Amino acid sequence: MTARVVYAGARTLLLEPTDPQPPSPGQVRVDVAYTGICGTDLHIYHGDMDGRVNIPQVLGHEMSGRIAEIGDGVDAWQIGDAITVMPLDWCGTCPACRAGHVHLCHRLTFLGVDAAGAMQTSWIVPARTLIRLPPQLALDHAALVEPTAVAVHDVRRAGLAPEEKTLVIGGGPIGLLIASVAARHGADLRLVEPDSFRRALASELGFTCLDPADPGLPGMLAEWTHGTGAAVAFEVSGAATGVTIAVNALAARGRLVQVAIHLVPREVSLHRFFWRELTMLGARLYHREDFQEAVDLVAAGHIPAIELISRIEPLSGASRAFSALETGAGVMKVLIDCQGEAAGER
Amino acid sequence: MTARVVYAGARTLLLEPTDPQPPSPGQVRVDVAYTGICGTDLHIYHGDMDGRVNIPQVLGHEMSGRIAEIGDGVDAWQIGDAITVMPLDWCGTCPACRAGHVHLCHRLTFLGVDAAGAMQTSWIVPARTLIRLPPQLALDHAALVEPTAVAVHDVRRAGLAPEEKTLVIGGGPIGLLIASVAARHGADLRLVEPDSFRRALASELGFTCLDPADPGLPGMLAEWTHGTGAAVAFEVSGAATGVTIAVNALAARGRLVQVAIHLVPREVSLHRFFWRELTMLGARLYHREDFQEAVDLVAAGHIPAIELISRIEPLSGASRAFSALETGAGVMKVLIDCQGEAAGER
Repeated sequence: MTARVVYAGARTLLLEPTDPQPPSPGQVRVDVAYTGICGTDLHIYHGDMDGRVNIPQVLGHEMSGRIAEIGDGVDAWQIGDAITVMPLDWCGTCPACRAGHVHLCHRLTFLGVDAAGAMQTSWIVPARTLIRLPPQLALDHAALVEPTAVAVHDVRRAGLAPEEKTLVIGGGPIGLLIASVAARHGADLRLVEPDSFRRALASELGFTCLDPADPGLPGMLAEWTHGTGAAVAFEVSGAATGVTIAVNALAARGRLVQVAIHLVPREVSLHRFFWRELTMLGARLYHREDFQEAVDLVAAGHIPAIELISRIEPLSGASRAFSALETGAGVMKVLIDCQGEAAGER
Repeated sequence: MTARVVYAGARTLLLEPTDPQPPSPGQVRVDVAYTGICGTDLHIYHGDMDGRVNIPQVLGHEMSGRIAEIGDGVDAWQIGDAITVMPLDWCGTCPACRAGHVHLCHRLTFLGVDAAGAMQTSWIVPARTLIRLPPQLALDHAALVEPTAVAVHDVRRAGLAPEEKTLVIGGGPIGLLIASVAARHGADLRLVEPDSFRRALASELGFTCLDPADPGLPGMLAEWTHGTGAAVAFEVSGAATGVTIAVNALAARGRLVQVAIHLVPREVSLHRFFWRELTMLGARLYHREDFQEAVDLVAAGHIPAIELISRIEPLSGASRAFSALETGAGVMKVLIDCQGEAAGER
């Protein structure tokens, strides 16, 4: 049996049987192995993005799988190839595309948000979105390639140099992936995260993770940097306090990479930006080179995939998975096993 | 007679006779020719910086003059040399200094704010702050070198490339100087300024200056950039709306240079920074190389000194000058003639 999970309105996911269609020219049909659930999927689930998604909407853009069927004109791929998908479809003609910033396309189609996503047994995608996976890479770990590509892109935006004092505000999946990628670049890291489960997991991964509610936080950051301030901060929390902590913690000429989605404007001390000549860099999505580097990092075991994947649910357990993430208690990354076997907690 | 003007508390400037002292070793005594009045001086005059200045405080850091007396150990200068002063005295040992960002020194002494300034007949400064002026440069024009160095630094922070669409928010002295410097770099410019006198002056200087109150502004900016958005925006207004206009006007990967002093935090659309991968760069003061380039620009006539200098007052007219700037009506830059002759309106 083949099936899909659709978002049908706030807090409503439906499991539906499907009848796989053949791919059109230039497309492939993929048997999806695993699909991860991302913060954006949760925003959709909460109904916050009903103005953008088309109900019923198949969610999911963090995935791994194998090619099951190949459309006309697709030459570089074979049935059975292990792949992930860079879920971006750009127009190629808008000002951002013409400037080479295709990931910022003014008419970007993001698969899983603006078009059908991967939370289904069988997914048809343009062949140009495929990213090859090495054969030895476990497909559950490979579902982390997409969020790892986000982290690679964020670290690239920072221009991170070895030994730079680097603060990651937010210890969820993206925060921990940024920390993991930054550690590979030789950064001297501190994380800030209010949730004790997430702090404990960060500690297990070898990171020093501080509590933003601790009144001693500014003093600890000052001591860590010998009064200089941090060279780089990644704002991954999406919280107003995260922005303030980051801005206050930076050294002269420090760089703040703005990763999180802030749905409302935030009060920012522009005086601090002036006084210390800080830089803020918005960072969104990734380029193909970020994806390739992410594949290499996951395949080489530099991303703590086993620790980050808290549980795996079958397609029929999608609602349960979203609920678990909604409470946030005791889970980090949750994958959907799209070929149907229940897997349960790790 | 020699004299000085001191700030003695909110809205109080006093003219006092002085008794010039000889310079200590490593210092020179300068006969000040002209001292410009800057936005920071106005902030002090309003009493907004009483927590920082030491009353009675001699204001003024935009100046020109000639060396009148030379202290021991100063070899590179002669009496009569035309100079301006880079009014920064840094510690050399703090983290910012050690990182080479001496203008961001954690213990910076800014002459005219944290130590005696140039609004006096005779000023003693460390010889290392001196900047040589070419003999043919008129000393009233040379009083614009310091704010021009600010503009040079801001344009350098932007990494401005020829033909880039560049928006300057704020058409006061610094905004017009940034526009003048950016024009020399080949920028395609638009200014935004609410005051009609300032808009008219910008137009006289050859700039297209738009009114932020015009509801057609976003459409005009979109048309100017063919829907792409501006590559660079300089926020020089210090107003909340200036920040919003700048952020909304920028293209994908656009750069916002934050020049103005915002005394309170501002609401900033971090989502826009994320969505378009914008960069914000704080910009403060200058380096010595910025000062040197500013001297060259003023000396070569690339800065519209005649148009920017609205009037010149004697030391005894300082209160009148500050009052004129406070109302903002019909004046741009006002200089104090520190050798005492009344000069009046231009």
